[in-house]
Amino acid sequence: MGRVGFGELAFWLVAGRRPTPGETRVFEAVLVALADHGFTPTAIAARLTYASAPEALQGALAAGLLGGGSRFLGVTEDCAVFLRDTLAAVDGEPDDWDAVAAAAVTARRAEGKLVPGLGHPVHKVRDPRTPVLIRIAEEEGLRGPHLRLFEAIGRAHPAILGRTLPLNGAGVCGAALADLGLPVELLRGFALLARAAGLLGHLAEERRTGLGLEIYRTVDRNARYVTPTE
Amino acid sequence: MGRVGFGELAFWLVAGRRPTPGETRVFEAVLVALADHGFTPTAIAARLTYASAPEALQGALAAGLLGGGSRFLGVTEDCAVFLRDTLAAVDGEPDDWDAVAAAAVTARRAEGKLVPGLGHPVHKVRDPRTPVLIRIAEEEGLRGPHLRLFEAIGRAHPAILGRTLPLNGAGVCGAALADLGLPVELLRGFALLARAAGLLGHLAEERRTGLGLEIYRTVDRNARYVTPTE
Amino acid sequence: MGRVGFGELAFWLVAGRRPTPGETRVFEAVLVALADHGFTPTAIAARLTYASAPEALQGALAAGLLGGGSRFLGVTEDCAVFLRDTLAAVDGEPDDWDAVAAAAVTARRAEGKLVPGLGHPVHKVRDPRTPVLIRIAEEEGLRGPHLRLFEAIGRAHPAILGRTLPLNGAGVCGAALADLGLPVELLRGFALLARAAGLLGHLAEERRTGLGLEIYRTVDRNARYVTPTE
Amino acid sequence: MGRVGFGELAFWLVAGRRPTPGETRVFEAVLVALADHGFTPTAIAARLTYASAPEALQGALAAGLLGGGSRFLGVTEDCAVFLRDTLAAVDGEPDDWDAVAAAAVTARRAEGKLVPGLGHPVHKVRDPRTPVLIRIAEEEGLRGPHLRLFEAIGRAHPAILGRTLPLNGAGVCGAALADLGLPVELLRGFALLARAAGLLGHLAEERRTGLGLEIYRTVDRNARYVTPTE
Repeated sequence: MGRVGFGELAFWLVAGRRPTPGETRVFEAVLVALADHGFTPTAIAARLTYASAPEALQGALAAGLLGGGSRFLGVTEDCAVFLRDTLAAVDGEPDDWDAVAAAAVTARRAEGKLVPGLGHPVHKVRDPRTPVLIRIAEEEGLRGPHLRLFEAIGRAHPAILGRTLPLNGAGVCGAALADLGLPVELLRGFALLARAAGLLGHLAEERRTGLGLEIYRTVDRNARYVTPTE
Repeated sequence: MGRVGFGELAFWLVAGRRPTPGETRVFEAVLVALADHGFTPTAIAARLTYASAPEALQGALAAGLLGGGSRFLGVTEDCAVFLRDTLAAVDGEPDDWDAVAAAAVTARRAEGKLVPGLGHPVHKVRDPRTPVLIRIAEEEGLRGPHLRLFEAIGRAHPAILGRTLPLNGAGVCGAALADLGLPVELLRGFALLARAAGLLGHLAEERRTGLGLEIYRTVDRNARYVTPTE
Repeated sequence: MGRVGFGELAFWLVAGRRPTPGETRVFEAVLVALADHGFTPTAIAARLTYASAPEALQGALAAGLLGGGSRFLGVTEDCAVFLRDTLAAVDGEPDDWDAVAAAAVTARRAEGKLVPGLGHPVHKVRDPRTPVLIRIAEEEGLRGPHLRLFEAIGRAHPAILGRTLPLNGAGVCGAALADLGLPVELLRGFALLARAAGLLGHLAEERRTGLGLEIYRTVDRNARYVTPTE
Repeated sequence: MGRVGFGELAFWLVAGRRPTPGETRVFEAVLVALADHGFTPTAIAARLTYASAPEALQGALAAGLLGGGSRFLGVTEDCAVFLRDTLAAVDGEPDDWDAVAAAAVTARRAEGKLVPGLGHPVHKVRDPRTPVLIRIAEEEGLRGPHLRLFEAIGRAHPAILGRTLPLNGAGVCGAALADLGLPVELLRGFALLARAAGLLGHLAEERRTGLGLEIYRTVDRNARYVTPTE
């Protein structure tokens, strides 16, 4: 207490070792990037639950976190797994990152799968979080193989896919966390911790202005939603 | 299996005794009444969660149930507690149910509280579930003191409150469950069990037509919701 | 209300059509079979949660349901998927069920995977639920291709696996639900509904005797558990 | 990102204003104090859920948070409410903190209620977190009326209650958060955020050593637990 920060403690508890100040800085930057506080499906679920059961804040927070699955929070984890598996197949540090990236993107495409971490529904050209996080990692000497491969994918994919997609923020967070040596299978946990802060912001807002029931009425009024359940 | 019905089993597990066929009939009628499958805040929360994490159906169901708190599912429990406490203050079966009801409504009003089980946002005059459940209980010889007092409240309250409100379905369900001797503190549990069936219906519908993300987009497009969090 | 049973309603809401009396009987038998009320990891999680937050019954129920994932409740769904996929590869009703079953078990073994629905940690020879459910389905004219294939697997596997395993109750429930035409992807939902009843029984018991904190103390006292987190 | 820390962001989102560096330091110290990572009922619930449904980390985290209710995490909130209400009844800053504290403890005792924040199951004499947090708040100029009143309760209660109890860590955290001007009704939210980090530590540990099923077997073997549900 007073000697260890909260983000530092979260890293420590999961990794089983105390992070260096540089690692803590990168880690907290990732948590901040993932604590998206905009309107999301999970934020709406949390607000509706709070409006229905205001005496149990824990239930509203839990309801919001339960949407943190494959579709909504999976990119961070999926991207880290993809990078890790690609690196595992290479013997040591590659000489030519772009060639490794191109091969991985080509193989992924042949499987008919999307490349995790590429593309964003809003940021069509560039996700502003990506260069910031890479710079912070670079400054702290923590721009490791996962981030380097991820950047190489950013350079290599247009020639293969025929169009240029941005490296998204969720993906770069996965790459950065993997470079910190955190267990890939638990990366979703950090996304959930970050979301917990974002959801608390929503619940504080819900307490002040109470949109939950208005959201419900908007949906309820909309005949298109009601019809199918008849 | 094959010899005990599902509703019968739920009663048995909670009450610790096997219900009679008449008790089972009343109990199942209550579950059906409470399994409201219309669009509700909790149904929306469940659908949004399923759309975000379709691989974890249990999470979507749990998110929907978490809204089952004081405001949304509390009436059944609150009504049963109110009836039980009123009856506990009377010595034995009252001769004049209407007088007991009038005194209870008057006392409640003096506390500045609403009478649980009175009034409904949609059914302004009569909730159709109420007379049906009372009739079923009567047919099975299970129209006991909680239901009788609830009916008396229906007759006595207009003179005190100055307007006539319907006895709502959630309230009559609480009265009927209390007359079955089920523990009042766990009545919310039956409402949750009933809701679980309603929510599964929503999730089946969500799987077929996928409204979750459309609900999200509707909310997201609506500037009034987005502004406050900026 | 009064005209439709609770199990019948659950079927109706999910399938979008009212079941026949025979279908309702099979369906309720499945729910009863799956509402295992013994001590399970999820029952303990629900009790501990109730002991920690007794004012929010919905949270305790939700916590118990959240364990209903791949490992704990997955067999019903996995078995139905396996049977469906095997049947889909056969053109029409097979003449020789045992040959189809033998081929499926052989293929599964070649993939290094277990056959879903075979084996049980307690019932080493025979799971008593299996013959009862098959008999009920037979009586109602609902012993369809999934159940027939499942039975054939029971006959065919010893020659391939070199030992005889029982057809377990979770598996036969999956086969029976699939024969009712219910969507295979939602079968876990019925297992969750059934578990909800079992969990309410546990929470009623917890309210009476309060084992939650004693469970915690037992675990806490056990040095083996505490050491690893130091 | 890179310019705002994670704890700072959580404060910002809930309070709607950016905290000063001093406020951030006190706030992070509180989160660290509340992120208890020892074996708790909620940690066990989370581990059991993870063992049953390892594919849905969000469900295990949610199950652990759902125990964060009145009994387990309520002290922080209850203590802050008690201090706030006591201060609200005093006009301005009291001259004699100990007299205000003594009156509040006496009134609480007359109601037959415990004083929130007094006493600890393990730390019988002194909770080590209490003086550390008070010192940090003092260093940052944030030892405000809630903390002062809490300290006065520590001095005044022995004469009234006839025994000396420690000011516990959960209580001092509530007082410190209230002095930061955070909404008392949402303090449980910060306790939940802190617990989320502690629970992730448990889930990382569970992934490494898998105690969940062993916990279950220990409980299951213990006849005392099994008997009551028969």
